[in-house]
Formats: sequence, structure tokens, C-alpha cells
Amino acid sequence: MTTVYDTHTSEVTIKAKLAKAASPKLSLLSTGQKNAALLRMAEALVQEASSIIAANALDLQRGRENGISVSLLDRLALNESRIAAMAEGLRQVVELPDPIGDVLEAFDRPNGLSIRKVRVPLGVIGMIYEARPNVTVDAAGLCLKTGNAVVLRGGSSALESNKRIVEVLHEALRETDVPVDALQLVLDPSRASAQEMLKLNGLLDVLIPRGGASLIQNVVKNASVPVIETGSGICHTFIDDSAKPEMALQIAINAKVQRPSVCNSMETLLVHKSFAERHLEMILHQFAQQNVELRGDEQARRIFPGMNEATDQDWDTEYNDYILNVRIVDGLDEALAHIAAHGTMHSECIVTENADHAARFLNEVDAAAVYHNASTRFTDGFEFGFGAEIGISTQKLHVRGPMGLPALTSSKYCVVGNGQIRG
Amino acid sequence: MTTVYDTHTSEVTIKAKLAKAASPKLSLLSTGQKNAALLRMAEALVQEASSIIAANALDLQRGRENGISVSLLDRLALNESRIAAMAEGLRQVVELPDPIGDVLEAFDRPNGLSIRKVRVPLGVIGMIYEARPNVTVDAAGLCLKTGNAVVLRGGSSALESNKRIVEVLHEALRETDVPVDALQLVLDPSRASAQEMLKLNGLLDVLIPRGGASLIQNVVKNASVPVIETGSGICHTFIDDSAKPEMALQIAINAKVQRPSVCNSMETLLVHKSFAERHLEMILHQFAQQNVELRGDEQARRIFPGMNEATDQDWDTEYNDYILNVRIVDGLDEALAHIAAHGTMHSECIVTENADHAARFLNEVDAAAVYHNASTRFTDGFEFGFGAEIGISTQKLHVRGPMGLPALTSSKYCVVGNGQIRG
Repeated sequence: MTTVYDTHTSEVTIKAKLAKAASPKLSLLSTGQKNAALLRMAEALVQEASSIIAANALDLQRGRENGISVSLLDRLALNESRIAAMAEGLRQVVELPDPIGDVLEAFDRPNGLSIRKVRVPLGVIGMIYEARPNVTVDAAGLCLKTGNAVVLRGGSSALESNKRIVEVLHEALRETDVPVDALQLVLDPSRASAQEMLKLNGLLDVLIPRGGASLIQNVVKNASVPVIETGSGICHTFIDDSAKPEMALQIAINAKVQRPSVCNSMETLLVHKSFAERHLEMILHQFAQQNVELRGDEQARRIFPGMNEATDQDWDTEYNDYILNVRIVDGLDEALAHIAAHGTMHSECIVTENADHAARFLNEVDAAAVYHNASTRFTDGFEFGFGAEIGISTQKLHVRGPMGLPALTSSKYCVVGNGQIRG
Repeated sequence: MTTVYDTHTSEVTIKAKLAKAASPKLSLLSTGQKNAALLRMAEALVQEASSIIAANALDLQRGRENGISVSLLDRLALNESRIAAMAEGLRQVVELPDPIGDVLEAFDRPNGLSIRKVRVPLGVIGMIYEARPNVTVDAAGLCLKTGNAVVLRGGSSALESNKRIVEVLHEALRETDVPVDALQLVLDPSRASAQEMLKLNGLLDVLIPRGGASLIQNVVKNASVPVIETGSGICHTFIDDSAKPEMALQIAINAKVQRPSVCNSMETLLVHKSFAERHLEMILHQFAQQNVELRGDEQARRIFPGMNEATDQDWDTEYNDYILNVRIVDGLDEALAHIAAHGTMHSECIVTENADHAARFLNEVDAAAVYHNASTRFTDGFEFGFGAEIGISTQKLHVRGPMGLPALTSSKYCVVGNGQIRG
């Protein structure tokens, strides 16, 4: 199918239509055909690394001219080893089992009808994301493996990189059984192109936003296409009275500083008041040594006077940075109430030696992942053993927590009879 | 918790907040506690039947004054046997297995983390529906059994009936462990109250619309709360060349006339041209005898001249009535293309003795339920053996097809360690 632009239809709609037209053929490919395409894509990325790096240099130059931050420039930058890592990611997707065609249930009815529930692709997935060009490759690979066509709408700051990457992937797909139109990149980086995607019911089956809170909230609030909400994480660690001090310290430090920029890192430390009397000073001293800025409630500041006062807003802020809120609580109930009021249902942890408290915490906290005596940083597709993930869902519908390949599938009932009619 | 109305907050928001506040307690009740409440609700409905019928009489009177149709009045009308049937529906929900707490997956990681994926309630479900008062009872029962609070927003024509039903159910719940606030009925029948529900992110976890196409499309297009789309069905039956004529006749007639008003009934009959030459006249004669108005394409009208011409719009219309479109196709590919262009991904059927054609149809048609040699009328929770259903999902996310109790649940990961941190 060739991309003919008519003058009345937008780029986004045209590309979504092309993706939808390619979707039935893609959905019927065998695992072998899809894996062959993934391997060819991986090879092509490595072969074309220099042209991708050249395109990336244009993005980096424009980024520097526009004064974007050093950390953003770092996320944007590609080099040979990063491109090799993207290719390796595709090869890892080859190794994952193909969920399409799995029979999820099979049963016969008394009237002789034989019913199978079979896993099928979602159809066409819309991805709206920000600067990282590796999302382009990850999303293309995961969608292809699950038989889904995909419309990618990356951030303007990575436009040249994404363009060249998709050109390379298209060239690779031409040598395979995968229809090239199954992979679409929106070139219009305007806000209007993203807004248009939100309303493409009938062309897009689902939207997956990845990026900062404002991008995700825009999609959640304005999309009529079904959305899988990802990402936002205000995660807590509650250190109970009976916690082992050294374990509590290690888990809390890891949850905050091992990688503060990600959604499963801790923003607020809740500490039982008697544990706090005995050990909070030691723990906060360690945080300060790791250059974490501390913001505490009144009781915490009495124990560790160096820190600032946490404002009402702080308890509801996802810092993704070396900043931590600290609150002293009377016990489990107050910790549970704080998490219910301020958490984003992502990842929550209790450190305790009290089995009843652990059971209550696991049972009563409403979140995608609830931990007893382990760091919240484990909420991740690889850490759970699912392989590459397309995001971490913080909604309750369809999928919750790390999204492996099955999260990109739907199901259908195949019903076989020999003339049954309903009485 | 008492219902205190402040002057600045709407009824809908207040009731959603009360439901959300009740949700944690409800989510932790045992199966026995929930079943006891369901049985008490069933008893109360029967005991209070006369007051419910009296309230229903007010709705019927207003309906007649407003000139609503006889069929709508029939759907609205309650009598002792219909109330007994609603109570019996609640008792059947008691018999269904409780999905909450089911361990869906359990595995250990090499680092010693033990991970369980556990079924949990969705939280608070918003139901927006039309005239039938039995939906009020069905939804209350199914949501309660799955530990979900519910905010019901029924149609204005059933307001008095719904009010009295919910009063009766509230009285019943007061004698049980279920928090009364878990069941909320919105009394404001204005369009504004429904529109407000669509935007209650953070209070409602999901919206389920039930009713006509315009109600459902309004919810799908305007909600920022996640939606489970139900209902709309333009279903096809394709009679292939090799179909047994008597079986094809029985399946087609059943799919159309056994209950034309429902979403899984057939709207369009597709017939292979050589089968049509041999048998279409016989089949359409039977439809005409059943008072079905026929609308055909040119070829069909040549064979059965009595019928009107089908317009372009007819192929995309859900009649829910004694009207049928008829189209002659060259073969399987044309049938598949027609279904892809005009179907609503609900229920689609092929009648054939050709195993390859059956396999292709089951594989290639993108719909919630795909049939070989059986009537589309079987797409139904009871017929599939799931028990009572809250609707039939025609979307691909979360649940597709008849929605039994598991469709009203989410999951969470419970992760137990002994001090694990991420390296």
C-alpha cells in the first residue's frame, strides 16, 4: 500500500487508516514470520547506526540551541552502544513466547456448542511519548510480536532520530512478511496531532501514553479512544515499629536513590513513632549523606532538625529527584490512611517483622504492587520476569502493574456448533 | 457514614465520594458476608414488592402521560413475578463463585522475591442506564458480590421505581456487614448528572453504560473515566456455498426473530451466490412469513423481487426489529470484507460444511464472538455458562464478550521479600 496523501485528510488520520488496513494481515502472521522480522530489524539498526547517529546529532544540536536540560540531552543522545542495546532489546523480544493464538479457556456446553477463548491482537495501538528514541524501537518490537499495528507519535525533540529509525525499520520490513504500513510514525510534532489521535475511535483500539504527568493526564482526560494509563508514581515506604533497622535503612535508601528519576522510586517515607524515636536519626543521616533533600512533618523535624517543613503539596508531589518527604505516624492505620490519601496506586512497601501487619498491608493497600520487606524499585517487567515492558499500568482496567506482551492482547470467543439455535 | 450534603458539591460527586469511602471496607468482606447480604436483599425485595409496585405505578402513569411507547412501558412495568425474578437473580449470584482473592499467578524470582497476582475489586463502578428497573437490582448484586461499590444512574422514566428499590436494598443492607453507602442511586435525572459522572476520575474506577447506541456513544466519546463499552451489535450471518439448506434456514431465522430487540440478533444476511441461486427464495419466503421486512441488494432482489432496496445506510443500521438486510456475495472474501466494513465486532456467524472456510472465518473475523454453524443469539453470559452478566463488551480492552463476575475485577501484585533491594 502506498502513502497517498489527499488534501483534506490529516497526516494522523491517514497513517492510522494505513495501520488499520495493515492490521488484519499482521494479526495472522506466524510466530516465525514475526520473529524473522524482529531479527531483520535488529540487524538493520546496527548496520545503519551511523546514519541514525547523524540524524540524532541534528536533534541534539536543536536541543542545545533550544536550551533543553543536560539530563534531557542525555536521554535523547544515541551512540553505537545505545543503538546496539536497542537492537539487543528486539532480539530479546524474539525470545519471549508469542501470546497470540493461545487458548485461554476451552469448554463445551450441554447443548453441544464448543467454545474456545483465544488470545488475539488488540489491533492498532497508538503510542504518545516524549524524548527517548529507544521507545520508538521498543514499541515497534513489542507491538509487532503481538500482531498489533502501531502509530507512534514521539516528541518533537527526537523527531529526526525517530524519522531515521523508522526509515531503517521500514527498509528492514520490506524484506519480510510484515506489512510495512503496520508501523507508522507521525511526523507532525504539533500538539494538534496528538490531540487528534485521542479521538480516533474506530481506527485506534488503544492509546498508551508514556512520559511526564502532564502528557499522561492530557491523554487520560481528553481521549475517547480507550487508554492504558501508565507511569505516575507517588510511592511510599512504611517502616513499622518491629522493622529490623538495617533492613529498613537498606530498603528505604534503595527505594529513593538507586534511580530517583523513575516512577517506582519512593517519594515519601512513613515511620512508626517508636521506631522513629530509636532509629530515624540514623536513617535520615544516611539520606543526607546521599545528598537527598529532606522535608519532614513536625515530629520528624523534632528528631532531625536539619530538614525543611513538608508542605501540604509536597505529600502529593512526584519529585523523581533527590528529595524525600518524611512523616511520623502512630501506627499501621495512620500509614494506610496516608497512602490511601496520597498514593497513586503504583508501588507501596511495608518493612515489618509483624506478620499480621504485613498481611493487613498487602491486603488493604490498593496499588498495582504491594511489598513486604523489599524495595519498591522491583516493579518492572524484567524484575518480575516478564521481559521487556511497554510501561507500568497504574489503572485498574485491563492490566495493572508491569505490562508484558499479554497486556497488548485481547481475546475472542470461537464457538463451533452443528446447527444449534436458541430456544 | 451519614449523607451530609454541602451546598457547593453536587449530588453526583457527594454520592461518588460516599461510595469510594465505603469501598475499602466492602473490598475486605468475606464471601459469606457478601452472600448473606445478597440473600437479605432478595428477601427484602419480595417482602416489599407491593411498595415497589406502587412506586412503579407512578413511573408508568407519568410514562403514559408522556406518551412513551408500549414496548418501553412493558420494559418499565413491574409486577410480583418480575420482582420475584429480580430476587431470584440475586440468589443466583450467591451461587456463583466469588472471584475476589483468587491467586491468578504465583512465582518466585531468583533473588528470593515471592510474587502473587491476586484478584481484587475494581473499586467503584459507575452504571449509566435507561428504563429497565431490573438493571438496578442486577448491578447492585453483581457489584456487591465482586466487592465493588456502585453509583447507579438510571433513566428518569424509572426514577420512582429505582428510588424505592434502592430504599428497600438499603434497609436490607443495614442488617448486614455491607456498608450501606456502597450502593448509591443518583436521583437527579438531568443530562448534567450523567455528564458529571463521566469526568469523576479518582472517584469512579470504571463506567459501564447500558442502553441505546446514543447513550453508549455519549459515554464513550465524553468520559475521561475508563469505560467498558457494551451492547451495540450489527451482527451478520454468512451462508456459504456448501451450507446445509435446512441448517442455514434454522440458524438465520433464529438469529433474526427469536428476539429481534437484543444486540446479538442478526441485522444482515450474507449469502453465497450459488447457494442463493438454489435456496435463497425458500429462505426469504420463511422470513417474510415471520413478518420480517426484507431489504436487499440488486442480486437478492432479482431472486426475491418482493423486497425493497437496501440503502447504503441500512448496512450500518442496528434495527433491533423485524427488519433484515440481504446481500449476495461472490464468496468468503467478500463476506469477510463486508463484515470488516459494517460489523460492530459483536457476534458473527458462518454456516458452512467447508472446514477451511470455517477455520478462516473463525480466525479472520475480528469480533467478540465468532460462530460456525450456530446462531449468534448464544452470545450471552448464561448461554456461555458464566451466570448473570452485567453486559456484553464490544471493546477489546479488559474484557470482550459476555461480562461475568471476573470482568468486574482487577488484580494486584503482592511481593514478599526478606530485605531485597535492586542492584
